[in-house]
Order: sequence, then C-alpha cells, then structure tokens
Amino acid sequence: MTITFEPIGVVRSPFDETSQIPKGPGAQHTEEGVLEIRPDLEAGLTDIEGFSHLFVLWVFHRADGYDLFAHPPTSDRPHGVFATRSPRRPNPIGLTVVELLGRDGRRLRVRGVDMLDGTPILDIKPYLSSVPAERIRRGWLG
Amino acid sequence: MTITFEPIGVVRSPFDETSQIPKGPGAQHTEEGVLEIRPDLEAGLTDIEGFSHLFVLWVFHRADGYDLFAHPPTSDRPHGVFATRSPRRPNPIGLTVVELLGRDGRRLRVRGVDMLDGTPILDIKPYLSSVPAERIRRGWLG
Repeated sequence: MTITFEPIGVVRSPFDETSQIPKGPGAQHTEEGVLEIRPDLEAGLTDIEGFSHLFVLWVFHRADGYDLFAHPPTSDRPHGVFATRSPRRPNPIGLTVVELLGRDGRRLRVRGVDMLDGTPILDIKPYLSSVPAERIRRGWLG
Repeated sequence: MTITFEPIGVVRSPFDETSQIPKGPGAQHTEEGVLEIRPDLEAGLTDIEGFSHLFVLWVFHRADGYDLFAHPPTSDRPHGVFATRSPRRPNPIGLTVVELLGRDGRRLRVRGVDMLDGTPILDIKPYLSSVPAERIRRGWLG
C-alpha cells in the first residue's frame, strides 16, 4: 500500500542549510517565516486567523533514505528513530508547532519555523490543546 | 511534485465506524488501542518506552476527496478546512496525541485513540513540549 500526497504549499524561512537550524531539546525556535499556500487552496484558510498556534506537517525533502537508529547531536548513544525527531525516518514527515502572527491572503506569517526555505507543506491544522507540562515524560531527553 | 509514503504500521482500535468516535472540542478520547508497527521497523521503537506521550501521524483512509470548507458538527457555519480537523482535507493526514501505556515488542499500547481500527500509520514521534494552555487561542472554537 502506498499513499501519494501533493504539497499544499511551501515554507519561506531564513534557513538555507540544516546547519543553520538550532537543534536539540533546549533549542529555541523564534525565527519568523511564511507558510505560502497554493492559490487554489486559499479559501481553505478561512477563519484560521483566530488560532494562536498551528501544527504544520511538512516533508524533509532533502532526506535520502532512513535508519532505524538515529544519533541525535544531544545524546551520546543511538536511539530508535521513532524515539527521535531525526529526518532520516521511514516516512520523512516533519511536524512543527508555530505561532500564527498574521495572514495576508494565502500567506501565513508565523514564528517558530525550524524548516528549510522551500520545504513542502503537507497540511496545516489548528493547535487546540496541550498535555500539561507536569504530565510529560521525555525519555532519554529527560 | 508528488510524494509517496508507505505506512509503518496500523492502528488497532475499538472503533469500526466513524460514528462511534467522540467528536468536537470537548470530546474525551480515553479509549485504549494498539499501534502495531511493521516487523522490519521494530528496532526503530528502541527507547520509546521512556516517553509518556506520542504524536501519531496517520491516514484518513476512508476519506474520498476534499472540500475547501468544512461543516464541523459543533459549529453552525462552515470554516476553512485548514481551520478544522475535517478528514476531507487536501492531504488526508490525521494527527493524534496519545499516552503511551506500554510496549510489547512492535506493539505500543496507548490511550486516547480517535482513529478507526485498521488506520494506516505514517509516523510516530515523541511529544516533547506543550504550548502553555493560557497562550492558546482557539478561534471559532473559543
């Protein structure tokens, strides 16, 4: 079974190389960027302005293949790829929570981008609720 | 540009029909289920036990086509599809936060499933941090 998607748009970000993107659990992602949605999908953004935060699903478009174990820069040993945010995953989908700063037609200005400029966007969803911080355990990152 | 994915596994849930799944912003998702990962990917789950919550990315495999406007059951007017969780979206990807109860080999027991039994899974990621509840604005749901 294979599933085929077409991007709904593209990320405009200040990052041209992965080395420019802050990494690790303590990384602060405060850079601003733009989610540029396809003209034919602009109406799908109606009412999105009311949400403070969005989930962005996107493609690690420069990833080539995957590994079952990842070696995060912040750890001294490998971890299963699904216990990490490594781009080299079986389906190279990225997930980022961004703060919505404003909308200009089919362009959403957002804060908190950690994607490369030109990253294909698969979906945007409203961020509705959080797990309370005191209930989160972060495994090997803890 | 098209992007092709293969499921990494399948959801086992108590829901056979979408009508059985609680919907709307106040819906409580406390049902337990199992994320059954492909045997060839089991090693990718190493160390996942330490995380209390996971993001699950999955496919609305019964969705057929999309609409730019969705009519959520909890609202009296339509909203842009990207401002909703409608399954009828350009790329029918679902996103659920589940609580990890335990792991048995390639099977993850989780709480909080809102997917149909047999739903294809695209990716699993550790849930690392939350937006503080007081900072979230929920637009037309507010």
